[in-house]
Amino acid sequence: MSRFRFTVAYDGTAYAGWQIQPRQVAIQQVLQKAFCDLTGESIKVHGSGRTDAGVHAAGQVIHVDACFSVPPVAYVRALNVRLPRDIRILSCAQVDDSFHARKSALSKEYRYFIYQADIMLPHLRLYRTHVHKKLDTEAMQQALAILEGTHDFAAFSANPDREVETTIRTIFEATLREEGQDIILSLRGNGFLYKMVRSIAGWLIRVGQGDAKFADTQSILDSRVRTAKVPTAAPEGLFLWKVHY
Amino acid sequence: MSRFRFTVAYDGTAYAGWQIQPRQVAIQQVLQKAFCDLTGESIKVHGSGRTDAGVHAAGQVIHVDACFSVPPVAYVRALNVRLPRDIRILSCAQVDDSFHARKSALSKEYRYFIYQADIMLPHLRLYRTHVHKKLDTEAMQQALAILEGTHDFAAFSANPDREVETTIRTIFEATLREEGQDIILSLRGNGFLYKMVRSIAGWLIRVGQGDAKFADTQSILDSRVRTAKVPTAAPEGLFLWKVHY
Repeated sequence: MSRFRFTVAYDGTAYAGWQIQPRQVAIQQVLQKAFCDLTGESIKVHGSGRTDAGVHAAGQVIHVDACFSVPPVAYVRALNVRLPRDIRILSCAQVDDSFHARKSALSKEYRYFIYQADIMLPHLRLYRTHVHKKLDTEAMQQALAILEGTHDFAAFSANPDREVETTIRTIFEATLREEGQDIILSLRGNGFLYKMVRSIAGWLIRVGQGDAKFADTQSILDSRVRTAKVPTAAPEGLFLWKVHY
Repeated sequence: MSRFRFTVAYDGTAYAGWQIQPRQVAIQQVLQKAFCDLTGESIKVHGSGRTDAGVHAAGQVIHVDACFSVPPVAYVRALNVRLPRDIRILSCAQVDDSFHARKSALSKEYRYFIYQADIMLPHLRLYRTHVHKKLDTEAMQQALAILEGTHDFAAFSANPDREVETTIRTIFEATLREEGQDIILSLRGNGFLYKMVRSIAGWLIRVGQGDAKFADTQSILDSRVRTAKVPTAAPEGLFLWKVHY
């Protein structure tokens, strides 16, 4: 038995999310089926973390324990022919048994894509969140600067479906840039609470629309209570971009 | 009765193409149904031209004759609520009765998107053509320069399903640029033969892969015969970008 690490990209549109659930198709399950098809064995896929229904990944990382007889790179192709086109293995490497996709992660990077236009272009609709008018990106930048660093992010998390020891997290790097009609929010942190990225995106969109003041970001953080002031932005704009080890 | 011009964008993935066909869902048909839902009348939608199955549009133009009682702009919203999310009306204007979406077009602009990477990213798979290795864009540029201008493009057209008077067309502007891992081919011409853009893209990809020499472009043009040397590139990379009047 050896441990292997795979980088996986997926289009989350058709899935109920990462984690296996009854009566719905999850990405983890489709991957496990592909490993089973390939090896004839039941192989448990460990992800770096969950993604919600409709959320995408450009660089999810998983690990599996398996007896592979050929060089790992051969498994990239062998798995991809067994996977639907909306899930792709990008790379594979044998790793030390101490490596763990979730526990070994030093930081995770998410990107949130916002498309600013009166009408949404059809070919972007599954991969952007649509806002009808140009946002005030300067105000959003200022709100973001308040969120960067170590804080109790309870006010920016949905009721978690599992207990967490602490709601304190560190955002190492937070950037926001405009590219044509897109706004790209990038967050790299040591961990994210349930729906934390979408809550931050939802708050920033409100600030950018002029419906909230960037300076209120601090008092919302301090409140440590999630209220309707912080909406959860739509899943389709969100990509798990990269996991850093 | 007045004439109205609409600009339409669509994701062609789910459709059998623009034109109404038996036992398949066409974009023209979905638009006609939306007009019928809105007005209660049977309204014929005239497009600037057809697009094939799986081909997208960022700026298809149509005209209709109808008795609209409110300002045209109100129809944008009213039609979009009746259309699936993969078809969007972008704008509407009343036009002179002499305007015709196809006959009045001075030129049409198509863009063809090629994604160069070992493995295709899932969220791009429906809107890019995938090539596994970096292409020689310099050779492609040189082939493209030969195709620019007025030529008999018979060798770059699939067997047309309708008779055409002439296979001579003018490409006013042909550009090719790289953006990250994308290659974007842009062609603006006074008209395009059946599958002409995809044939040009297919040939350029062959040249870019080193499977054909750019200098052979001239002899293929001169032959006026379509052969296997010119493959038809995949539909998903193609967008009808803009129609100029």
